[in-house]
Amino acid sequence: MSEKTNYSVLPTTAEETKGGSDPIIPQQKATSRYRKFRSSLLKLSVAALGLYWVFSQTHGGGHRGGCFFKGKKPKYTFEGHFQDNIDKLVAGSLESSIVWDRLAEMTDTYGNRIAGSDALEKSIDWIVENVKSDGLSVITEDVVVDYWERNEESLYFLSPTRGPVKLHMLGLGFSVPTPDTNGLEAEVIVVNSREELDQIGEAGEVKGRIVLFNKPFESYSNDVIFRTMGATWAQEYGAVAVLVRSVGPLSLQSTHTGNSNAASIPAASVSIEDAQLLARSVKRHQQNPEKFSDWPKVKLTMNAKTALKSKVSRNIIVELKGRETPEEVVVVGGHIDSWDVGSGAVDDGAGCFIAWETIRQLSKLEQPPRRTVRAVFWTSEENGSPGGRVYAANHPETNTTRHVFAFESDNGVFDPYGIRFTAGRRVQEDPEKFNSYEFLTAAGEHFIASRKDLSYPGAGSYVLPNGGGADIAPLCKQGVACAHFTPADPFPLPYSTSPYFIKDQPSEDLQDSDPHHRHHKSHHRRHHRHHHHHRHHEDDGEYRDPPRRPVDSGYFYYHHTEADTMGAFTPDQVKSSAAVMAIWTYIAAESRVEL
Amino acid sequence: MSEKTNYSVLPTTAEETKGGSDPIIPQQKATSRYRKFRSSLLKLSVAALGLYWVFSQTHGGGHRGGCFFKGKKPKYTFEGHFQDNIDKLVAGSLESSIVWDRLAEMTDTYGNRIAGSDALEKSIDWIVENVKSDGLSVITEDVVVDYWERNEESLYFLSPTRGPVKLHMLGLGFSVPTPDTNGLEAEVIVVNSREELDQIGEAGEVKGRIVLFNKPFESYSNDVIFRTMGATWAQEYGAVAVLVRSVGPLSLQSTHTGNSNAASIPAASVSIEDAQLLARSVKRHQQNPEKFSDWPKVKLTMNAKTALKSKVSRNIIVELKGRETPEEVVVVGGHIDSWDVGSGAVDDGAGCFIAWETIRQLSKLEQPPRRTVRAVFWTSEENGSPGGRVYAANHPETNTTRHVFAFESDNGVFDPYGIRFTAGRRVQEDPEKFNSYEFLTAAGEHFIASRKDLSYPGAGSYVLPNGGGADIAPLCKQGVACAHFTPADPFPLPYSTSPYFIKDQPSEDLQDSDPHHRHHKSHHRRHHRHHHHHRHHEDDGEYRDPPRRPVDSGYFYYHHTEADTMGAFTPDQVKSSAAVMAIWTYIAAESRVEL
Repeated sequence: MSEKTNYSVLPTTAEETKGGSDPIIPQQKATSRYRKFRSSLLKLSVAALGLYWVFSQTHGGGHRGGCFFKGKKPKYTFEGHFQDNIDKLVAGSLESSIVWDRLAEMTDTYGNRIAGSDALEKSIDWIVENVKSDGLSVITEDVVVDYWERNEESLYFLSPTRGPVKLHMLGLGFSVPTPDTNGLEAEVIVVNSREELDQIGEAGEVKGRIVLFNKPFESYSNDVIFRTMGATWAQEYGAVAVLVRSVGPLSLQSTHTGNSNAASIPAASVSIEDAQLLARSVKRHQQNPEKFSDWPKVKLTMNAKTALKSKVSRNIIVELKGRETPEEVVVVGGHIDSWDVGSGAVDDGAGCFIAWETIRQLSKLEQPPRRTVRAVFWTSEENGSPGGRVYAANHPETNTTRHVFAFESDNGVFDPYGIRFTAGRRVQEDPEKFNSYEFLTAAGEHFIASRKDLSYPGAGSYVLPNGGGADIAPLCKQGVACAHFTPADPFPLPYSTSPYFIKDQPSEDLQDSDPHHRHHKSHHRRHHRHHHHHRHHEDDGEYRDPPRRPVDSGYFYYHHTEADTMGAFTPDQVKSSAAVMAIWTYIAAESRVEL
Repeated sequence: MSEKTNYSVLPTTAEETKGGSDPIIPQQKATSRYRKFRSSLLKLSVAALGLYWVFSQTHGGGHRGGCFFKGKKPKYTFEGHFQDNIDKLVAGSLESSIVWDRLAEMTDTYGNRIAGSDALEKSIDWIVENVKSDGLSVITEDVVVDYWERNEESLYFLSPTRGPVKLHMLGLGFSVPTPDTNGLEAEVIVVNSREELDQIGEAGEVKGRIVLFNKPFESYSNDVIFRTMGATWAQEYGAVAVLVRSVGPLSLQSTHTGNSNAASIPAASVSIEDAQLLARSVKRHQQNPEKFSDWPKVKLTMNAKTALKSKVSRNIIVELKGRETPEEVVVVGGHIDSWDVGSGAVDDGAGCFIAWETIRQLSKLEQPPRRTVRAVFWTSEENGSPGGRVYAANHPETNTTRHVFAFESDNGVFDPYGIRFTAGRRVQEDPEKFNSYEFLTAAGEHFIASRKDLSYPGAGSYVLPNGGGADIAPLCKQGVACAHFTPADPFPLPYSTSPYFIKDQPSEDLQDSDPHHRHHKSHHRRHHRHHHHHRHHEDDGEYRDPPRRPVDSGYFYYHHTEADTMGAFTPDQVKSSAAVMAIWTYIAAESRVEL
């Protein structure tokens, strides 16, 4: 994912929106141009619910009809074939390691897939061919994309040290090159916040220097602003380049690239360790200029090239026609492009491939779901998301066809946790009548929470607020119900940093700002009931697993780095995730209710 | 630390001993040539204990005399000045960040310090100069060392893929170069165990190929054998080179180097991710040779040079004469050389620098301890530990001088956990009379466990079995009581791998084989009492810190990698560790008992 999908990892804040995110629709807020749909559609929803009720009383049997909320909440029941088909989808998804095997084959063969590259187009061809061999219906649609080419680049620490020391760097996407192809030598000045930059900038200390943004990791949504906006801010004070500490809780010298706002000065990321090295050196000089007389200097060389709208890439659309209301479309997918480092297995190859598996498993059911399902692999999400915009423009709502649910996966695929969900505008306009958030929560409890065949108890069953995603954002804006596949964090805080770090990595603070605690209190109790397994050892010391938490910091071990490879997850994790994505997609596509 | 210090992270096994470790003396085992000392020394010990007892009854006051074992165990008491001086040592160690600042300055300036390099000798000069500026007495002693020079090296994945793909590799220490300086192209064959190697080797499948040892991480002591012995084993079957998966729980594409047994074929490490890539490719070919017809091929280039006994390096010895029994020497230290990647801050710069701080703080006491204290920074531990052997040879036991306690730090410096300890031969010969392990445990409980000023409750107070270390091994062999400074694990299992990995990283198995559970059951209850802090959150979900555990897998995020930098620990962690090392050293140097 790019910086534009922050809100699917952490809820949207004013700060992120400024950074360029497409805001998603707040719950409980309706705009007038959809009022006209409200009355008829809500009636349809209520009627559909009524139908379920009646149907389940006569056809649904035993435990399958037993899902309801406590107290006065409405009771949701499901027709018997829901459970049968969900069981088939899960069994099918767990049966083989085809998703893992295919993703490994593709990424091992073609490598990473930055928009505009041959590798991306070859990967798209490979997917189309294999989708066809599955007997599925597939088309592509052209998307004009921007191209950014890294080329030769390097960063050396010149002095005061033992001589040019090569640092771990990656140029940031859409950065300009250094004016001289042989590089740029300059002193480094260090800031940890925009306020500090403004302060030293106004004091004239930035002019002619390279600004290092050295903010220790708190959260991606909080810190990515330095990567996206650092160069734009620093050029105002006459900086000649910016370096940005990798946005992640742990680096081990692997550097995190990503997009930056186009500015007139070059921008590069450095590993956490090398950012710390430069910051220490500058601090020594500033605190004791008599002993450490040299102002620390680096040499940055970048030969990056930007060619806006210079290439044509493609979205891939795989479609399974609905059996009852084919004009209602459920879309599920991810983005097929990646950054130009690692292999793009995590971001977002795996997201696409579990969507592919979802439609493959749905196509094997005796009958397709009521609604049409499309698996879409959008192109160029990392380079501004034109794929998502082109898809929305090419498939507008008409009198005879409309999207009813958009479901994206772009937060990695580890063990499944659940989904983030925002109801569609039609439901939001009259929240008293039908609450699709509660409906999906009940469905998660009913169909997923008690399964024994997924990664861990409850895996995939949780429904959190704040659905959305960079590629489905244009659909969400139109009022389509939107969801994001949410994995469990592979290295949940505070475990994602050395848990005993106190100063540089304030893990206690981090933990309190965890979205898990802020945003789904109501789910906490169930979460803990399911996931605090006790393991008893040979002595009576008690040992606990870390609680499962929705993905957050652990994803940022891999994000936009050389370590974004198949090594980030296991075949079993992919199987469970594909199964969970298939269940949620099926529920959305088989239901008659408005979501 | 090198592979020779396994036993200080994990207890020595037969397998490790075969791999080249110096075995340490098992408890309860005595050899006859020390029998003659036994009677007189034990009498001295008992007399000393008696003295303590009497002294404490008359001079020791209040809580300071209150440390004893439950039940029928002997009661140990301490003179009042122990507590006063320990308080001063801790206050002094916590007062400033001098240790951190000095280590950062040295490593930022000179970089890593492989034996035989100019960087190592410059670093040694820098230390000597600064030790003198502390007013401490310092000498160096020459050590002839082996030199291994990495030079240009690379590894490319040639086919079947998109063309030469550069992999993340580091040649292993003392590897021969590739026969051709332009590299060696060969097919890769993958094994996960020596048994597999033997099997395919006998079937003739190894001849002419490069063997990749791809064993997933279980523990360092279990898996390092592939790094040390892989080339030696594989050459027997006609392999042309070996690649070894980095020995660690997590790689993020950073590669782990280290020593290998000299063999006739080159040996290199690869990142975990790239080992997985090659293994997947080979598996695809082996399982489906019709579709994946090319046997995966790589090109390895190494221009390493070995020059045995070609350089002179130095041990650094800082001495503080004892006030009562200067002929009894307590030695504390680490190794000053490092691998030729990263900056050697963790392995073992920090170990040396907390020993330096220990002697600096001891020198500030009103009077020096009864026994002589030496801080020794041994050279060339990574290249076969000649520094430790030269030190032992130069300072043998005589009628007028002998080592009574050797205390090494070479498992990293994070938060302190405690020490690993093995009693000296004199005590072991008559364990009924005095149990120095119990004595130190009581001292840890008394002087450290209840402090509020260290990293966490109990920090540094735990005494575990199996003292020793590569550089003090020659002293331990002579029967000197030996201890190893043990930090708390910065990323304790199962948190050190993605906690939800099931197949490739069997974290549940790992956990059961944790030395913590196997080897100090008796400490477990106290450990848990102190460290299972409950943290209550805004909702009533209960959140727990991971338990503190002695260092194990988390150290291997950094070990022998580019990520071995100051970023691995914080100034506060170093302060607490220095304080803890000072306390233990003081207890050993001020006590009259035989340890």
